[in-house]
Amino acid sequence: MLPEIVLRQAQEAIWDLDGTGIGVLEHSHRGKAFGRVLDGAEAAVREVGGIGSDYAVLFVSGGATAHFARVPENFLGDRTADYCHTGVWSAKAMAEARRVGNVHVACSSEPDFATVPTTFAWSESPVYVHYTSNETIYGTEWVTPPPAPAPLVCDASSDIFSRPLPLANHGLIFAGAQKNLGPSGISLVIANKEFIKLGSVELPPLDRYETYAAERSLHNTPNTFGIWVIGAVCRWILSEGGLDAMAERNARKAKLLYDALDASKSWRAHATPGSRSNMNVTFRGPTPAREDELIKAAEARGMSGLRGHRSVGGLRASIYNAFPEDGVRALVALLHEHDA
Amino acid sequence: MLPEIVLRQAQEAIWDLDGTGIGVLEHSHRGKAFGRVLDGAEAAVREVGGIGSDYAVLFVSGGATAHFARVPENFLGDRTADYCHTGVWSAKAMAEARRVGNVHVACSSEPDFATVPTTFAWSESPVYVHYTSNETIYGTEWVTPPPAPAPLVCDASSDIFSRPLPLANHGLIFAGAQKNLGPSGISLVIANKEFIKLGSVELPPLDRYETYAAERSLHNTPNTFGIWVIGAVCRWILSEGGLDAMAERNARKAKLLYDALDASKSWRAHATPGSRSNMNVTFRGPTPAREDELIKAAEARGMSGLRGHRSVGGLRASIYNAFPEDGVRALVALLHEHDA
Repeated sequence: MLPEIVLRQAQEAIWDLDGTGIGVLEHSHRGKAFGRVLDGAEAAVREVGGIGSDYAVLFVSGGATAHFARVPENFLGDRTADYCHTGVWSAKAMAEARRVGNVHVACSSEPDFATVPTTFAWSESPVYVHYTSNETIYGTEWVTPPPAPAPLVCDASSDIFSRPLPLANHGLIFAGAQKNLGPSGISLVIANKEFIKLGSVELPPLDRYETYAAERSLHNTPNTFGIWVIGAVCRWILSEGGLDAMAERNARKAKLLYDALDASKSWRAHATPGSRSNMNVTFRGPTPAREDELIKAAEARGMSGLRGHRSVGGLRASIYNAFPEDGVRALVALLHEHDA
Repeated sequence: MLPEIVLRQAQEAIWDLDGTGIGVLEHSHRGKAFGRVLDGAEAAVREVGGIGSDYAVLFVSGGATAHFARVPENFLGDRTADYCHTGVWSAKAMAEARRVGNVHVACSSEPDFATVPTTFAWSESPVYVHYTSNETIYGTEWVTPPPAPAPLVCDASSDIFSRPLPLANHGLIFAGAQKNLGPSGISLVIANKEFIKLGSVELPPLDRYETYAAERSLHNTPNTFGIWVIGAVCRWILSEGGLDAMAERNARKAKLLYDALDASKSWRAHATPGSRSNMNVTFRGPTPAREDELIKAAEARGMSGLRGHRSVGGLRASIYNAFPEDGVRALVALLHEHDA
């Protein structure tokens, strides 16, 4: 879901970018008009995230899954990387890293993935520590990053810019854009400039983070429209009060739902307090039949997408930045009606 | 440049995709609405290209440059690949292939890259033969594919769907979308199903063509908007009479320019007859000063982008599918005025 104002701006930009008489899809990525788009998007990302000159802001074509492979290809070498295992996405990231080298599972929220780990067994000298800041499928979120003994690599696809960005100790933050930032097919990477210098120089240029930093994401033609949308969304976040305001709003929205679930006789939240996601509220009903019933009743009121991920079942309310509080209230009302 | 009707349709789809009340940027890639977009785009690509069931139609995030590395990573192994060297793009492709294994230059249009090769020295048993069907920077185009002794791999980024698609003998055709197909940040791949089965199974899934074929480009979230635009552009091509009509129109547009250049006292085409691109008409003036003069005069009439690529200088008129004949006629008139 994107803010309506951004959709309206996108409609205009597709026809005529900034009064140039040519649309954003048609401008050359080497021309002045797109240069302004790129500058503006980077500046907005930096302002929203409070990102200083020690970090590079990179726009990479493709989603987060590509980074599951690119990160170990760049940084793992013959050392060991520690992974925090909190669900489906960390499992995918580890599978890609194991293809490249040594992976150590430093903590895990198995078997039910309801609680973010609080105890850690780090390897002797990990090259980096990977974690997934928000688990969309199980509905958990790290309140603070893991206390890692090495640079953190964060898959922030599903909660980036939903709350203040914890840059400290991070080597790399990557995020597929399609949850809170823009369209699919592009990812935002916030990269510590010293950290990415350690990347392998033997990879193809487009697979090296250093290339994007050195050539300002213009080694080849980037996803120009995606960059435009990310810039527009960041300007919208600023106009709404920035990440503090986003965090406050998201916490309020999520609390409405968790409070309703905790008070319910029939419905229960999957994640435990202290580990609960403000982006994806996962919950179960007393029986699969009752869950189906609720999903159908929701659809009848125009609420779609409530079915949990096919791998875990149950229900899931995804309430990203642009999701309105009214929508949450409507779901809470429905839960009350279907409680018994 | 995209057809105006496609831009108008894109504006509508961003706000409300097919009457669903939700925009194309916001629909889940696993939902029914996007499923129809993907089905429709693939069907339109197949109808435009005359592509049968022996070829898979793949939508890959990222542009053509990524394929310069992916193709040898998938197929080269410890064998030799033959490359047809016709300019800047084949040089980039060869540089990536050399990182992976053995490259043999089977033909070359060095040093001036004005004529597409007509003599070939193939290696003993190449695993594939790579060529660039249209050279944007030097302005040459293969009228027919090279007579290769192995499956052809074609970088068709700049002339795909500008004329009938020569599928025979091709293992893989890849094309960044931003010239004739849609927005940047996505590529279309037309892949022989038997050929891509030969790809390495040790690569990350997103780096294997076989993954896209097996999972219908949905291994991870694809560039959903890019797929929508490619479908809309292909439906526009069909409504205009398909690739025969495109080819006829493009040949007519290019002939206007080449005829003017051949008749000119001051301006001369770079490419030789029989090798001339119908997409990118490259030409030189008597002096750099006269070239600058023409570029300024063109800009004063609203014609931008005439400066040749920074690596070769001169002038270049890029007249892709959606470029109108009137624009070509305006440039021809300008050439006449500046002839002397």
